[in-house]
Amino acid sequence: MSLRILIAPSGFKESLEADEVADCIETGILRVLPDATIHKAPLVDGGEGFTKALVTVTGGTLHHLTVAGPVGQPVDSYFGFLGNTQTKTAVLEMAAAAGLRLVPHHERNPLVTTTYGVGELIKAALDAGAERILVGCGDSGTNDGGAGMAQALGVRLLDADGKEIDRGGGELIKLERIDLKDRDRRLESVQIDVACNWHNLLCGEKGVARVFGPQKGASPETVEQLAAALDNYAAIIERDMGIDVREMPGSGASGGLGTGLYALLGAKLHPRYDIVMQYLHLDRLLEDADLVITAEGSIDFQTPRGKIPAEVAQRAKKYQLPVIALAGTIGRDAEVNFNCGIDSFESILDAPCSLGDAIANAPELVTKAAERVVRSVLVGQKLATGS
Amino acid sequence: MSLRILIAPSGFKESLEADEVADCIETGILRVLPDATIHKAPLVDGGEGFTKALVTVTGGTLHHLTVAGPVGQPVDSYFGFLGNTQTKTAVLEMAAAAGLRLVPHHERNPLVTTTYGVGELIKAALDAGAERILVGCGDSGTNDGGAGMAQALGVRLLDADGKEIDRGGGELIKLERIDLKDRDRRLESVQIDVACNWHNLLCGEKGVARVFGPQKGASPETVEQLAAALDNYAAIIERDMGIDVREMPGSGASGGLGTGLYALLGAKLHPRYDIVMQYLHLDRLLEDADLVITAEGSIDFQTPRGKIPAEVAQRAKKYQLPVIALAGTIGRDAEVNFNCGIDSFESILDAPCSLGDAIANAPELVTKAAERVVRSVLVGQKLATGS
Repeated sequence: MSLRILIAPSGFKESLEADEVADCIETGILRVLPDATIHKAPLVDGGEGFTKALVTVTGGTLHHLTVAGPVGQPVDSYFGFLGNTQTKTAVLEMAAAAGLRLVPHHERNPLVTTTYGVGELIKAALDAGAERILVGCGDSGTNDGGAGMAQALGVRLLDADGKEIDRGGGELIKLERIDLKDRDRRLESVQIDVACNWHNLLCGEKGVARVFGPQKGASPETVEQLAAALDNYAAIIERDMGIDVREMPGSGASGGLGTGLYALLGAKLHPRYDIVMQYLHLDRLLEDADLVITAEGSIDFQTPRGKIPAEVAQRAKKYQLPVIALAGTIGRDAEVNFNCGIDSFESILDAPCSLGDAIANAPELVTKAAERVVRSVLVGQKLATGS
Repeated sequence: MSLRILIAPSGFKESLEADEVADCIETGILRVLPDATIHKAPLVDGGEGFTKALVTVTGGTLHHLTVAGPVGQPVDSYFGFLGNTQTKTAVLEMAAAAGLRLVPHHERNPLVTTTYGVGELIKAALDAGAERILVGCGDSGTNDGGAGMAQALGVRLLDADGKEIDRGGGELIKLERIDLKDRDRRLESVQIDVACNWHNLLCGEKGVARVFGPQKGASPETVEQLAAALDNYAAIIERDMGIDVREMPGSGASGGLGTGLYALLGAKLHPRYDIVMQYLHLDRLLEDADLVITAEGSIDFQTPRGKIPAEVAQRAKKYQLPVIALAGTIGRDAEVNFNCGIDSFESILDAPCSLGDAIANAPELVTKAAERVVRSVLVGQKLATGS
């Protein structure tokens, strides 16, 4: 019987999307095992690639539109509908409307960047008849607690004078009252599920302003301004909605978008891989596999803390499946992964080279690495069977 | 039963000796398979490392002495005796007395460098009671046709005035007569076997002066001077000894040392790996192995043309053994090796890096690569046995 291989990689940062990595691995495998039975489950977190991955695997559709980007400029964006679902389910990623990549370097100031475009994506999904909406968080360039997103859907965020506050996380310091009466009515009958990093919190020492503010362009003073603004946001939410979101898991996802989705739109938050793996039917794919090949740009001691290869390996081990991980960099203390369900690594590099060269040549490097590791696996098979 | 693995690597140029590579691979294997049965056969060509490799594998002895180096300076050198032999067998490498590494860069002129010290090594081996002498060729810094070596053993190389010619390949243009009557008598009863590159010829368009002269420091004019001198040498040898060495396989080995050993000392020339593999008992080791791991700094389309991993693979395939090759660089068209008995490669690199970093970190990189590839082999074993 031909070997059944599940290819379940992450994307390689700044290099290959997860589906491209999966295609390269498939090519490499087929060079050695032309009759292998291959299934591909390119994996994503809630960030860039979330929408396309879920649309692709379900045979759904993509819909393009222009929304207001994180600094107010028009950006080409998109949402999708999943295929093969009874409930008409839209899927979108916040990064497609408010991602860090959409914020020009000289405008990286999380006091003013906004998730307004994310609200526009949700509105477009509702306009298109969505009965359920999946929202992916990750790779955000904003820190507005989802305020802009909520405003785009009719939520009124008012200051002491009863006037609508402006866009951007810094404005939340002025928030005095939340008014939901003009909120889009369709939200009441639509279920919103959010895939978010469970470890991201809105407030406190490990709150999103302090942990992620700097990489979005915040100076130390800006970080404190933002933290104070989000504290005020949480206080008003607590008073007006009766919910304490300050250290709720996922509340800090995507610069606090998790909070806005949960408190102002009634969404349900989920650990991101619970959503991703469920929609990609990973368990079903694992049931039908003999071997799992995963991949990530870098594998190291942090991988077991929620990175894709470890998440895949953990689930594969429920089925006692061997797991091999390809990596561009096998970094510090990567050996810890051998205790977390990853049985072996293969380096994609085939010669001393710069990171830039590795990125430029990633498709060929990944393909050849897949071929090599399958060849090594076959050596083991031959040893065991003596043929 | 525990897996029986034969480790048969080359050295990594400018980085690790073959025995160091073998030790690293062993360490990596044992991390995964602590009860593996491991045999190590660090492989060499006839150049640097030849002596130590054969001494080590036979449990022999090393003997240190000072000889005249290729530019006449005293150099610390050595020869060895093999262990476990009925015939007292000395082993030496020409590179230990006349290697390119012993020629300072500013003195790289093959018109004057000499193999005199090689003759001194042979003499020392005779003094120590050798009944048989193995000579390794390779990594030479000379182009004197072995003239200096012969002179050190009493062969008289005379010019038109009956005077001894001076040292260095350039002097051979003056050679008029070869006089063996003062040659060391002990050579008559001692067998000398030479491990040399079978493709190196003394004369002609592919003669050693033209092919290797430039890398030993010869200018285009010097190359032609040397070629003419070696042509004269061959002509005098033909007239005085009745032998045509001009395009004899191995005659050009180590700047023509093969010719001197053959024509002036009565040595027998052999393709280098025939000698190496025989003395390292590679066939016996292969008989007792399940898996072979070889290695070389670089593996590419040239590997099948007589490089160590291909030589090992070719012999391993006589026993239907799987062969895996570790490499620092998996270069152009390396896939051709899959048709030459190498079943899989493993890259030693684990991150983008410079060649210098790869060289500096080679011991750890090789160790970890061995661990990885054994882990991948075990995945295959598990797939086959379902356990």
